[in-house]
Amino acid sequence: MKLEGVFSVLPTPFLEDGAVDHESLRRVIDLFIAGGVNGLTALGVTSEAARLTERERAMVLETVMHQTAHRVPVVAGTTADGLRTCIEYTRIARASGAAAVMISPPRLPKLNSDAVVGHFAAVAEAVDIPIVVQDYPPVSGFTIEPLLLARIARVVPNARTIKLEDPPTPLKIAKILQAAQGLEVSIFGGLGGVFLLEELMAGASGAMTGFAYPEILVEIVQAYRSGNLDHAADVFYRNVALMRFEFQEGLGMAIRKEVLRRRGALRHAGVRAPGASLDAGTSAALDRILAWTGRAVYKAVGE
Amino acid sequence: MKLEGVFSVLPTPFLEDGAVDHESLRRVIDLFIAGGVNGLTALGVTSEAARLTERERAMVLETVMHQTAHRVPVVAGTTADGLRTCIEYTRIARASGAAAVMISPPRLPKLNSDAVVGHFAAVAEAVDIPIVVQDYPPVSGFTIEPLLLARIARVVPNARTIKLEDPPTPLKIAKILQAAQGLEVSIFGGLGGVFLLEELMAGASGAMTGFAYPEILVEIVQAYRSGNLDHAADVFYRNVALMRFEFQEGLGMAIRKEVLRRRGALRHAGVRAPGASLDAGTSAALDRILAWTGRAVYKAVGE
Amino acid sequence: MKLEGVFSVLPTPFLEDGAVDHESLRRVIDLFIAGGVNGLTALGVTSEAARLTERERAMVLETVMHQTAHRVPVVAGTTADGLRTCIEYTRIARASGAAAVMISPPRLPKLNSDAVVGHFAAVAEAVDIPIVVQDYPPVSGFTIEPLLLARIARVVPNARTIKLEDPPTPLKIAKILQAAQGLEVSIFGGLGGVFLLEELMAGASGAMTGFAYPEILVEIVQAYRSGNLDHAADVFYRNVALMRFEFQEGLGMAIRKEVLRRRGALRHAGVRAPGASLDAGTSAALDRILAWTGRAVYKAVGE
Amino acid sequence: MKLEGVFSVLPTPFLEDGAVDHESLRRVIDLFIAGGVNGLTALGVTSEAARLTERERAMVLETVMHQTAHRVPVVAGTTADGLRTCIEYTRIARASGAAAVMISPPRLPKLNSDAVVGHFAAVAEAVDIPIVVQDYPPVSGFTIEPLLLARIARVVPNARTIKLEDPPTPLKIAKILQAAQGLEVSIFGGLGGVFLLEELMAGASGAMTGFAYPEILVEIVQAYRSGNLDHAADVFYRNVALMRFEFQEGLGMAIRKEVLRRRGALRHAGVRAPGASLDAGTSAALDRILAWTGRAVYKAVGE
Repeated sequence: MKLEGVFSVLPTPFLEDGAVDHESLRRVIDLFIAGGVNGLTALGVTSEAARLTERERAMVLETVMHQTAHRVPVVAGTTADGLRTCIEYTRIARASGAAAVMISPPRLPKLNSDAVVGHFAAVAEAVDIPIVVQDYPPVSGFTIEPLLLARIARVVPNARTIKLEDPPTPLKIAKILQAAQGLEVSIFGGLGGVFLLEELMAGASGAMTGFAYPEILVEIVQAYRSGNLDHAADVFYRNVALMRFEFQEGLGMAIRKEVLRRRGALRHAGVRAPGASLDAGTSAALDRILAWTGRAVYKAVGE
Repeated sequence: MKLEGVFSVLPTPFLEDGAVDHESLRRVIDLFIAGGVNGLTALGVTSEAARLTERERAMVLETVMHQTAHRVPVVAGTTADGLRTCIEYTRIARASGAAAVMISPPRLPKLNSDAVVGHFAAVAEAVDIPIVVQDYPPVSGFTIEPLLLARIARVVPNARTIKLEDPPTPLKIAKILQAAQGLEVSIFGGLGGVFLLEELMAGASGAMTGFAYPEILVEIVQAYRSGNLDHAADVFYRNVALMRFEFQEGLGMAIRKEVLRRRGALRHAGVRAPGASLDAGTSAALDRILAWTGRAVYKAVGE
Repeated sequence: MKLEGVFSVLPTPFLEDGAVDHESLRRVIDLFIAGGVNGLTALGVTSEAARLTERERAMVLETVMHQTAHRVPVVAGTTADGLRTCIEYTRIARASGAAAVMISPPRLPKLNSDAVVGHFAAVAEAVDIPIVVQDYPPVSGFTIEPLLLARIARVVPNARTIKLEDPPTPLKIAKILQAAQGLEVSIFGGLGGVFLLEELMAGASGAMTGFAYPEILVEIVQAYRSGNLDHAADVFYRNVALMRFEFQEGLGMAIRKEVLRRRGALRHAGVRAPGASLDAGTSAALDRILAWTGRAVYKAVGE
Repeated sequence: MKLEGVFSVLPTPFLEDGAVDHESLRRVIDLFIAGGVNGLTALGVTSEAARLTERERAMVLETVMHQTAHRVPVVAGTTADGLRTCIEYTRIARASGAAAVMISPPRLPKLNSDAVVGHFAAVAEAVDIPIVVQDYPPVSGFTIEPLLLARIARVVPNARTIKLEDPPTPLKIAKILQAAQGLEVSIFGGLGGVFLLEELMAGASGAMTGFAYPEILVEIVQAYRSGNLDHAADVFYRNVALMRFEFQEGLGMAIRKEVLRRRGALRHAGVRAPGASLDAGTSAALDRILAWTGRAVYKAVGE
C-alpha cells in the first residue's frame, strides 16, 4: 500500500487540568475524516508526543485506533532517542493496527549519516511495518540530505515514504526523486501545508500536516491529482494566508488548537508547557484572518 | 528622525561574469523609489554583502548614495565579525551620507548577552549615527531576547530601531514594546513581509525587507497607518501567497532577482556562489503565482 | 543540606542482549562509594537516561536507592521535554528518597529565558525537593547565561545548585557567583572533570561527573578544600590526561563503561544505540593511557 | 610536496591601540621556527582573520612571507563566505608564495554536501595550489563527514590535506583514511593538540594548531614518526594538562597570546573584540599550570 494524499496529524487535546481529553480527540478524528482525509497521523511532533508519558502515548494511540475504526489508515509516530525504545514503540504501533510508523533520526549531539541509516535499518529488521522517514531538522537536530534519504530508501525497503520538512521543500523533493530514481518513493510535504502546491508540482504525493482545515488540503490535492492544476492553485493561493498564519514557529500548536476549539472539536485549546499558549494579539489576528477567509463561524463544544 | 514605513533592502545585481552590475542597481533603486518606499537599505544579508569584497562594498554604497540622491534615507549594513571592522564600516557609511546603519551581533561561537550589548555600545561611542539592531538568528547564530533588545535600547540611545526577524515576530514585537516601555523604540518586520499585517497589528513601525514588489508593502503600511485596517488586511491577504513564495529559505535571493529581472530592473538574475540559483521547477512555480496575482508582465532589459 | 564534593554520575550498565544489568549497577555503586564519593547521581545524560523506557527508569532508580542505602545522598535526573512529565519524574524521585533532582531546560526549538525560569519555578512549586540546574547546552540546545542562572536562584530558592557544563567553565563560575551575590549558590563542575582544578579555584563546590575513577576526583577536592592547593594541583595535572581521554565527545560513555568493565564492576561495556561503541583504535589508546597512569590492572567480572 | 609534521597557526598580535603589531608577529615567527616547526599557518581562525580588514590581511601575509623567508612552507587561510572572494584570497596567497591555502566550507544557513564539493572544486579550478580542507564545525556551521571528505579528495586532487577538528578526532581520522583508501590523504589534528597522540596513533600526519609551545608538539611528532611511541606518549601525557588549559573554548586565543607575551614574543596580549580577554582567575590558573610544567620563566618584551 502506497501512502499518499492528505494525512492529518492529530493534536492531543487536553482538559483544563492538563490531562488528555480523549473525548475531544474523538471529535477531532471524526471532523478530519468528515473532511475527506486519506489518513491520520497520531503521536507526531505537533501531537506534543514529546510531552506525553508512555502511558498517555499508549492510551492516545488506543483512542485513535478505536475511533478511526479502519475508516482510514493510521500512521503512528514512534520516534525515540534510543533505538531500543523506538523499536518498542514501533512494536506497540504495529500491534495496535497502525498502517505505518513515522520516525525521525534520534537526537544525539554527534549523530552521523551511517548511524541514521543504521537506526532505520535496525527498526525495519525488528518490526515489519512501513516507515515514514521524517526530515524535520529543527526538532531532530540533523538534516537528512537527498542522497542520504535515497540511501535509506535503497537499504531499507520499508522506509520509502518521506515526510519532508526541510525548506526549500519543493526543490528538495525534486532532488530526492532524482537521487532515488528507480525506487518507488513517496514524499509528503508538511510544514502546515504552506508550500503544498509547489510540493505537488515538484512530485510530492500529498501532505502530512496538522492544519486545522484539512478539507482545504484535500480539495487541493484531489484537484491536482485529477489534472486540474488551475483549480488546485486557486484554492491554494486563496487559503495559504491562513495556513501561513496558523503555522507560526513556536505558536503553531496553540493556534491550531484554538481553531479546532472554535470548530467545535476541542473543549479546551490548552497546550502543555513549555509549549507557548495563545496571546491576545495572536488571537485578534486569528479572528481577522478567519473572517477574511469566511471561516469565522464559532461553535463551542456543548453549545 | 524616526525610521518607519517601508525600507526596501536592495539586492546586489551581478553581470554574467559575476562582477557587480551598477547599472542594474541604479534601475532597482529607481524602481523601488517609484514604488513609494520610505527608504532603502544597502549591504544587507539579502544584498549578499557577505560575498562582496571591501572594495565592492564601498562601490555599491557609493552607487546607492549617488543614485538615491537624498530622495529617501539610506540605511547601510555594517555588520562584521570584529568590532573594529564594524566601526570602520560604520564610519564609511556615515561619511557617505547614510541615515543609519544596520548591525547584527557579531558571529562568535561563545557569544553572550554582555558582549552583544558591549558591541553595540562601542560602535555607538565611536560613531554618531542611528543603529538598526538586526535580530536574525539563523545568520548571526545568536537570538536577542526581548529583554536584551530593551537593554540595548536603554544603554545605547542610538540603537532604538530594530529589524526583527525571529519568529513568531508579532508576539515578539509585543514583548519588546512591553519590555522597552518608556523608550521610543521603532520595530521593523522583515522576513519577506510574510507576517507584515500581524506585525503592524502588534505595533511594528513598518517593514524592512527585499520583497520585489515594495509597492504592495507600501500600500499595506499606508492603509494600516491611516487607520484603514480592512484595506490593509485585504491587500496583504491577497498578496501574501506571493511573498511567501519569494521568501523561500535558501532560495529567496534567487527568486527575487529573477522577479526583478522580469520587471526590467536587472540584466541578469545571477546569485554569487555558494548561494543557490534558480532551478526549473521553482521557475515554473514562480510563473504560476505571478500569473495568479496578475503580475506576469515581462519586460526584459533592453527590450 | 548543601550539596558539595564529588557526586559520581552512574552509568546504566546493560547485559549483552541490551537489558538493564542491575547486578553490575550495584557493583558500580559500591565501587564509587568505596572511592569516597560524597554522593551519587542517577539517570543523568551519561546514564543514557534518554534511552531508557519509563519502566526502566523506575527500576534503575529503585536499584540505586536500595543499593546506596543512605550511605550517601542520591541525586536523580528528572529532565523531560514536558513540564508535566518532569514534575511526575520529580515526584517519583522524591518518593523514592532522592536527596535532590537534576533538571535541564526542556528541549524546545524556540525556548526563551522566561520559559526556562517558569519551568523551574513550576517544578519547585509542585514538588518540595532541591533542584540541581543543569547547564549543558549541547544536549538541551539552550545556554543558561550567568544572569539567568542567578535569576533562577533568586526566584526558585530550591534551585540554587548548578551543574555547570558550558565552557569556559571556570570563568562562567566566577560570573555566576558574582551575579548571584548574596545567595547561597553551589556550583558543580562536570564535563568529565577536565577542568576540575580550575573550577575549584574559581569557586566551585565540587564535581558531578561520570569519570570512572572518582577516587581521583575525591583526592583533588579534599586536598583543595583542606587548603592544600599544591597537592590538589599535582594530583589533578598528573591525571587530567586520562580524564581528557575518557571524556571524548561522542565516545565518552563507551570509554567509561570499558574502564568500569576492566575495573571489575561491569559485566559488559555495551552502550545502547545510537550511542557509539568502542572501536579498536580507541581501545588501544585507552590501554596506553591506563598503563602510563599505572592503572592497567584488569579484573573481569567473574574471574 | 606532502604537508606533514607540525604547522603552527600564527596569532595576529595587536598593539595596545588595536592596530596589527608586525614586529611582534615577526618575533613569533622566529620563536616558532626556532622551536623546529615544519611549517606555519597564517590567517587561520585563531589568527583572528575574521576580525581583520582586507588590507590588514594582505599586510599580515606579507609580513609572514617576508619574515619566514622560505625557512619553512607557509599555509595561508583563505576561507570566505563567497566563492569569488575565496578565489581572490587564494590568488593573493599563491602570488605571495604560500605553499598551500586552508579553506573551510563557506558559512550559509542551508549549505549542503554538493555545494561544499562544488566550492572546493571551483577554487581548485581557478587557482593551482594545494588546499587544506578545514573541518571545524563550530565555526563553519557544517560538519564534513568522512565520506564527504573522501569525495572531496577524489574529485579535487589538490584538496587531499585535511585539518580535522571535529571530535572524536582519532576515530574520525581512522574513518576518513578508510573512506579515502587508495588516495594519498594527509590529515592534521588541530584543537590545540589536546588529542595529538591519539590522532597520530590513528594515522594523522601531524598537527596544525596554535599551541604556544610548538617545540613540545615537534618533540611528540618526531618521536612518534621515528618509531619511539613510548617517548612520544610520555612527552604528550606530561604536557597535555597545559595544552588542555590553553585550549579553552572562548578563551583560547587570549590565553595563548598571554603565554606568547610571557615568552617574550608579543608586546601586548590583547585580542580584538568581541573576542574575550583574559580575566584574573584564568591568569592565576595559568601561572599555576606553567609553574607545574616548569615553564614559568617570564621575559617581557624590551626587558
